[in-house]
Amino acid sequence: MVKVKGRLKNNMSFESVIDGHKIVMDAVEAFGGDNEGPTPKKLLLASLIGCTGMDVISILRKMRVEPTDFTIEAEAESSNEHPKIYSKINLTYVFTGDELPMDKLEKAVSLSQERYCAVSAMLKDSVSISYSIRVKTATN
Amino acid sequence: MVKVKGRLKNNMSFESVIDGHKIVMDAVEAFGGDNEGPTPKKLLLASLIGCTGMDVISILRKMRVEPTDFTIEAEAESSNEHPKIYSKINLTYVFTGDELPMDKLEKAVSLSQERYCAVSAMLKDSVSISYSIRVKTATN
Repeated sequence: MVKVKGRLKNNMSFESVIDGHKIVMDAVEAFGGDNEGPTPKKLLLASLIGCTGMDVISILRKMRVEPTDFTIEAEAESSNEHPKIYSKINLTYVFTGDELPMDKLEKAVSLSQERYCAVSAMLKDSVSISYSIRVKTATN
Repeated sequence: MVKVKGRLKNNMSFESVIDGHKIVMDAVEAFGGDNEGPTPKKLLLASLIGCTGMDVISILRKMRVEPTDFTIEAEAESSNEHPKIYSKINLTYVFTGDELPMDKLEKAVSLSQERYCAVSAMLKDSVSISYSIRVKTATN
């Protein structure tokens, strides 16, 4: 059982302290907020990135693959009607390094998306999640 | 279309900068992380709290109801098998104020959960989400 608490801070912003780490969320100005923090919906994308990213790097290290840089970009489209869920999320996994084995990168990403990533698993009955992999060498 | 990017920071931690706001996520030490930030799964609960909280406070203000304090507590149980999704989330909405009209509090929470909160809507096909409402007067 885990517990997370949030409190209305001012106007529309909410603050949550998770294991000693303060997170502030806010609405953008166009929706009556003050942009004191990320919107909850964008924070959900960060949560998805962190979840699958930690899976992937830990699986790759077990395979003795260590990229010099690793980023994930989430692009999401929202539906027009309430509730304005993300109808689609595309994740681009970008690995930097020399001679990174593509088969192992694909295996790690696929294991995360199909088996381990709980955030992805909680979303994918409602949201179409796709992904692609890019490899950059340190010199390009 | 929205974009959110995350980058591996060190060891297991990921950093994301969303509209100028830096978010760091990390695994706890028992899972090989350094607790530099909340775990992605706990961050998901914060996202849910912020999403429904902003709905509720904005609906209540339209009804001219203004609590003096408003907190939301999420309690979640994880499944035992991979992917370790939250099988259940219970949200407790706690409103503080004198003579707060319960019917309006219930209406605002129900509108958020049934109609507006996109984070809740994206989760509820996979996760059983329940909620309750508590009212505190300033003097108790």
